[in-house]
Amino acid sequence: MIVGILGGGQLARMLALAGYPLGLKFRFLDPSPEACAGHLGGQVIAGFADHAAVLRLADAAHVVTFEFENVPAQTLAFLPERVPTYPPAEALAVAQDRLREKALFRDLGIATARFAAVDNPNDLASALDRVGLPAILKTRTLGYDGKGQVTLRAPSDAQPAWARLGGVPCTLEELVAFDRELSIIAVRGRNGETAFYPIAENLHRHGILHLSRCRPQDPMQAEAEDAVRRLLDAFGYVGVLALEIFQVGGRLLANEIAPRVHNTGHWTIEGAVTSQFENHLRAILGYPLGSTAAHGPAAMVNLVGQLPDLGRVLAVPGAHVHVYGKEPRPGRKLGHVTLCTAREDELDALLDEVLRQVGEP
Amino acid sequence: MIVGILGGGQLARMLALAGYPLGLKFRFLDPSPEACAGHLGGQVIAGFADHAAVLRLADAAHVVTFEFENVPAQTLAFLPERVPTYPPAEALAVAQDRLREKALFRDLGIATARFAAVDNPNDLASALDRVGLPAILKTRTLGYDGKGQVTLRAPSDAQPAWARLGGVPCTLEELVAFDRELSIIAVRGRNGETAFYPIAENLHRHGILHLSRCRPQDPMQAEAEDAVRRLLDAFGYVGVLALEIFQVGGRLLANEIAPRVHNTGHWTIEGAVTSQFENHLRAILGYPLGSTAAHGPAAMVNLVGQLPDLGRVLAVPGAHVHVYGKEPRPGRKLGHVTLCTAREDELDALLDEVLRQVGEP
Repeated sequence: MIVGILGGGQLARMLALAGYPLGLKFRFLDPSPEACAGHLGGQVIAGFADHAAVLRLADAAHVVTFEFENVPAQTLAFLPERVPTYPPAEALAVAQDRLREKALFRDLGIATARFAAVDNPNDLASALDRVGLPAILKTRTLGYDGKGQVTLRAPSDAQPAWARLGGVPCTLEELVAFDRELSIIAVRGRNGETAFYPIAENLHRHGILHLSRCRPQDPMQAEAEDAVRRLLDAFGYVGVLALEIFQVGGRLLANEIAPRVHNTGHWTIEGAVTSQFENHLRAILGYPLGSTAAHGPAAMVNLVGQLPDLGRVLAVPGAHVHVYGKEPRPGRKLGHVTLCTAREDELDALLDEVLRQVGEP
Repeated sequence: MIVGILGGGQLARMLALAGYPLGLKFRFLDPSPEACAGHLGGQVIAGFADHAAVLRLADAAHVVTFEFENVPAQTLAFLPERVPTYPPAEALAVAQDRLREKALFRDLGIATARFAAVDNPNDLASALDRVGLPAILKTRTLGYDGKGQVTLRAPSDAQPAWARLGGVPCTLEELVAFDRELSIIAVRGRNGETAFYPIAENLHRHGILHLSRCRPQDPMQAEAEDAVRRLLDAFGYVGVLALEIFQVGGRLLANEIAPRVHNTGHWTIEGAVTSQFENHLRAILGYPLGSTAAHGPAAMVNLVGQLPDLGRVLAVPGAHVHVYGKEPRPGRKLGHVTLCTAREDELDALLDEVLRQVGEP
């Protein structure tokens, strides 16, 4: 069985590493000849909008999935006619458009921060009225890792921000003074079976995920599951879906979805009975899902821009290293470290040690 | 960093799957163009005695290891001069010769069944005197999975058995009426650091490993560790070493070593904090070893000759499937199933279910 993956980055690489034991082979489509998944299967070197190349991938695969959120909608529109393609194109389309995403949350009764559409500069004033300040102006499409957004502190920030973002359709969103940044990774099988990982508590730095820590038995677990279950059901979803959430006091506000395996779920490789990668593959292949239970306390630290001395990191008890095989570059995710322990208090001390080795204050 | 592996079978494949997260790349030497590790790295298609091909592997790798026990001694003799090669050639040479193996056990004070050398038919009578009956006549070299051995019940069996084995140098070994067949997987780093997995209790069928079950806190753990530690130290070993042991009453009798990752350690992929594959790589690369602790009760069932319905196996809670990507053939190891649970009594019931799905009575 051959799985085609749109995108050949680290998520594709980790999907392949989880998939070989299931007897799968992989083919990737990625424009970069250095795509880091390329060692683990055949690669079609082409852009995601290259219709003929996408067809070559589709015709060589028994099922297609994607690791990359910005696959053009027109690519996903024709794929499902050729080959089973999961997750559904609709989930990708929603994830690509912040306005549709927030509107769907609202329609499904999932609380969000205040938001308003800004299609042109004339919308800015009324949007500010509805959303208030401080707020964030975000491009509706193509934003990731903190890119494509500007914070507004005063009404006079609005017009320059709009210009800086290129005058494209935007959303204005309330800047949430959150207590915790959370995410929940969910998975739904082809038969509608669902499973939910323990929520993760996340810390970003310079707009890039820095640290995730899984929180089994968190008091917000049930509410987070309820929100993501509504999304799974609304999409008739198949595969792994991540939902990022702000917690403010006792309230959860949904922020965004990622219709794919997710950086805040990387701790599941060693930290859970079944990793998010294996469960995504089980789901899209129609296999029963594996247990999403955590073995115990676990955390994940991203390796961004440069790699630490791996020997020193591996000397930390319970630490596992994941290097993606990418050329170092400032701001680039090059790998991650997972840390698993038996007790929460142990995790704190060992996490400090990992962060020291990774060169983070 | 590129790791060269002599052999491209499932052990090489699982080493590669464990090694990509460490940022490694792989190159395999194997005579078969269908070698199942071949999808996970470059392959030199050549025999293990092909000097020029082995040199090509050595020159392309930063470190060389082997997954295959019958690499010719002359290949391993020149490799270490070209490139760091682990485990040491001496361990391989001992493992290839049942007489040297048993003699080393004896020299190190490790108990074994009675044994005697049979270099020619004239040795048979005195060997029978020393060893007694029933006994097993085994070729000194090239035996595996029950091949190259004949059981002797009466003195008159001896000459025909010798002829049937081709008249090559043999050992005669006491047939042990064991209570349990055990193995211990140990690992030693380049700096002499050692670690030991919980012993596994093993069941063979038709001479092929059928089932392994890890036994944390087994009363024989300390004695098994003591035996394998003597071997590690004697060899100045680097990498994973497996020792197979018979338990008779309260006594342990060493049977044989495998100087490589071992089928009875496959449960460690999901069942231990660090798998035997990751620890072998950590060892040969000079990294600190990872914890060998088991997460909990775990068992492994080999998939021999044919594959079961994977969906039905994956439906068993705690079951993970490892398919090697090999063509089915009677008696061929095609994959394995690992089963991990929280409690021993749970494991019993779920293991029955896995065995039913695997089609074993």
